[in-house]
Amino acid sequence: MIPEQRPFTLEATDVQTSARAGKLRTAHGEIATPIFMPVGTQGAVKAMDHQTLRALDVPIILANTYHMYLRPGTETLKAMGGLHKFSTWDRPILTDSGGFQVFSLKDLRKMREEGVVFQSHLDGSRHLFTPENVVDTQRAIGSDIFMVLDECTPYPASYTEARTSMELTLRWAKRGLDHHRSTPFLYGHHQLQFGIGQGSIYQDLRAQCMDELVAMDFDGYAIGGLSVGEPAEHMYEITGLSTERMPIEKARYLMGVGTPENILRCIGLGVDMFDCVMPTRNARNGTLFTTKGRVNIKNATWKQRDEPIDELIGVPSSANYSMAYLRHLINAGEILGLMIATAQNIGLYMWLVRQAREKILDGTFRQWSLEMIEQLNQPRT
Amino acid sequence: MIPEQRPFTLEATDVQTSARAGKLRTAHGEIATPIFMPVGTQGAVKAMDHQTLRALDVPIILANTYHMYLRPGTETLKAMGGLHKFSTWDRPILTDSGGFQVFSLKDLRKMREEGVVFQSHLDGSRHLFTPENVVDTQRAIGSDIFMVLDECTPYPASYTEARTSMELTLRWAKRGLDHHRSTPFLYGHHQLQFGIGQGSIYQDLRAQCMDELVAMDFDGYAIGGLSVGEPAEHMYEITGLSTERMPIEKARYLMGVGTPENILRCIGLGVDMFDCVMPTRNARNGTLFTTKGRVNIKNATWKQRDEPIDELIGVPSSANYSMAYLRHLINAGEILGLMIATAQNIGLYMWLVRQAREKILDGTFRQWSLEMIEQLNQPRT
Repeated sequence: MIPEQRPFTLEATDVQTSARAGKLRTAHGEIATPIFMPVGTQGAVKAMDHQTLRALDVPIILANTYHMYLRPGTETLKAMGGLHKFSTWDRPILTDSGGFQVFSLKDLRKMREEGVVFQSHLDGSRHLFTPENVVDTQRAIGSDIFMVLDECTPYPASYTEARTSMELTLRWAKRGLDHHRSTPFLYGHHQLQFGIGQGSIYQDLRAQCMDELVAMDFDGYAIGGLSVGEPAEHMYEITGLSTERMPIEKARYLMGVGTPENILRCIGLGVDMFDCVMPTRNARNGTLFTTKGRVNIKNATWKQRDEPIDELIGVPSSANYSMAYLRHLINAGEILGLMIATAQNIGLYMWLVRQAREKILDGTFRQWSLEMIEQLNQPRT
Repeated sequence: MIPEQRPFTLEATDVQTSARAGKLRTAHGEIATPIFMPVGTQGAVKAMDHQTLRALDVPIILANTYHMYLRPGTETLKAMGGLHKFSTWDRPILTDSGGFQVFSLKDLRKMREEGVVFQSHLDGSRHLFTPENVVDTQRAIGSDIFMVLDECTPYPASYTEARTSMELTLRWAKRGLDHHRSTPFLYGHHQLQFGIGQGSIYQDLRAQCMDELVAMDFDGYAIGGLSVGEPAEHMYEITGLSTERMPIEKARYLMGVGTPENILRCIGLGVDMFDCVMPTRNARNGTLFTTKGRVNIKNATWKQRDEPIDELIGVPSSANYSMAYLRHLINAGEILGLMIATAQNIGLYMWLVRQAREKILDGTFRQWSLEMIEQLNQPRT
C-alpha cells in the first residue's frame, strides 16, 4: 500500500515564529502536529496502560529498535505479526534506529564502515547493526515511521571528529535509504523513513549534512545528536539552522528533546515532532510537570495538601487524586504512585502540544508560549 | 449514624455444604458474600488503579493498620478526613489490627500484657500497640470494618503456649470491644468491629476462644492464626470447627487465606470473607491464576503464544493482551506487565467468588466447586 497523498500536510505557519501546525498521515492513523511522542522503549510506555494512553489522546508512541531487537527479538516480532499486533497498540509507532542506544554503550561497541558491533547489555552477546539490517529489524517491528542508522556524535567533539562522524552518517543514510527502497514491507502497511542530521555544534557541518539528506528525498527529517550535554543555546541554534534547510512539506523531528520549555522553543523554531524519556522518567522520581509549575512530590510541603494534582489538562487521575495521596504513594514505593505521576507528566506534555497547535492555528503562539514557559518553569508552592 | 439493620443478612445456605450467600452492609456500601478482599497494604492495591478495581467489581479492599499508622501516619489521616477521602476509594475498606504485621517483625517486638512494643521496619523507631490504641488508629483510618488486636500464635506452638496466647487474645478482645463502645466515630460513619479467634491447631482452645468471643457480641467474627505454615488439613479442620461455633446471623472472615482451592473449600465450610496477598504478589512474580489453569508466564512455552490471557472472567486487559506480550513485559521488567498480571489474578479471584455465590444460590455449589478446584489447579498448557 503506497499512500496516495504526501505523508505530511502543512496547515498553518505562525507569522511571528517558525512554528507550524500540520497533519502527518501514517498507516495506523493521522497525527496532528506539533506532537510529543511518549517513549515505550520495550514496547510499552513505563507505568502506563494502553487504555490510559488512549484516554490522554496520545496518537503515537516511540519504541526503541535496540531493545526490541534484543527482546523479544525479531523472530518473535515476525511470528506475532509485528509490534502493533503483539502489543495491541493500534495507533502509530515510531522506532529509532538503535544507533543512539548502541552509542550509549561506550565500551561495549566498536565502529566500522560496515556498521557498529556491540555487546548486549542483557547477556553480553555480540551483535552487528548495519544501515541495512536496522531497516530489516524495523520491518519486523512494523513501525509506521522509522529512522536510518546514524552515528550520534558525542559532545564535545572536535571539528574533525564531528566531520568524520557526519560523513559516515551520510553514507549510512544513503545505504539505509537504498535498502528501504529495495525491500518490501512485511505486514502490508506502508512505513515512512526519516533521515537524521548530525554535525555536532558546527553550523557548516550541520548545514552540509541536512542539505545532502534533503537531496536524498526522505519521507521526513530529524535532528539528532542534540540534548547530549551541549548548552541550550547551541541546541536552539542548531535546531533553527536545521529546520531552515528542511523542505516545508515534510515533517521535522527533534530527537530526544526535552523539557516543556525546550519543546515550546523548538516548536517556535519549526519542529513538528518530539520524543523524550523526561516526562516518564521524572515521574518515577517524583518530579512532576504541572500547569501550576514544577513539583518535587517527595517534599514535605505536600504531606497534607488536599488539592488536585492538576485539573486543567484533562487527566482523570490528576483531577481526582490529591497531592498528599500521590506523595504518600511515591514515598511508600507504590506502583500506583508511578502510574499517577506518569499520567500527569505525559498528560501535561500532550496538553502542551495540543495547546501549542491551537495557538499556532489562531495566531497567538508566540506570546502564549513565552507566558507558558514562565508558568511551567516556576516552582509550584 | 447507627445502622438500623443488622450488618449481615444471610440469603441462602447450601444444602450439601456449609456454604452461605449473604449481604454485608457497611457505611460505604453493601458487599455480596462470599467475597475476596484484595490487599491494599499501604492504602493502594499494588499495581492496580482504583478505576480498574471498580471495573473488576471489587466491592471492598483491605488496608494494613501497621503500615498506615507508620506512613502516612494517623496525624495525616485525620487531617485528610480518613483513608477514604485521602485515597478517593469510596467503597468499603477493612483494616486489620496491625497485630499480624507486628508479630511478623519477630526480633523487633516485645509482648506485654498492656500491648506489644515494636520497632518500625522503616526507621527503627519504637512504638506501642495496645488493644485500645489500635481502635483509635482504625478510627483515624475510618475503615468500615476493623479488627481487634490479637496475638497471632506462631506455628508450631505447644499447647501451653497456644493457650497462654489465646487467653491474652481474649483479654485484648474485651479491652478492644470496650474501647470501641466507649469512643466516638471520627468521620460520622459507622464502623463495624470483628473479633478474631486464635488457639493454634488445638480444637478445644479454638472452641473456647470462639465461644468467648461470640459471648462478647462482636459485629462479626474472624479466624486468625491460620495459613501460617500448618498443613492444609489442619486449616480446614480449624476453619470448620470455628464457623460451626459462630452465630449464623453474623459475617465470618478467614484471615490471610489463600489459594483458589483454599477459598472454595473454606466457602464450603461456611466462610463469607477472605483476604490474601497471594493473587497480587504472585502476579508480580509472573505466576497467574487463569480459568485454564496455573501459569508461570516466564516459561519459554509462552514466548510466541498469541492467545488471550483469559477471556472468561470479564477483565478487559486479560481478554485483549496475549500471553506472549505479557511474558515479554514481565521478562523485561515493565510495570505494565505487573498491572496486567495483577488485574488477571484479582479478576480471577473476584470472578471465582461471584461464581461461588451464584452456585450457592442455585444449589449447585458442591459439585461445581470440586470441578473448579481441579480446573484451576491444573497446569495450563
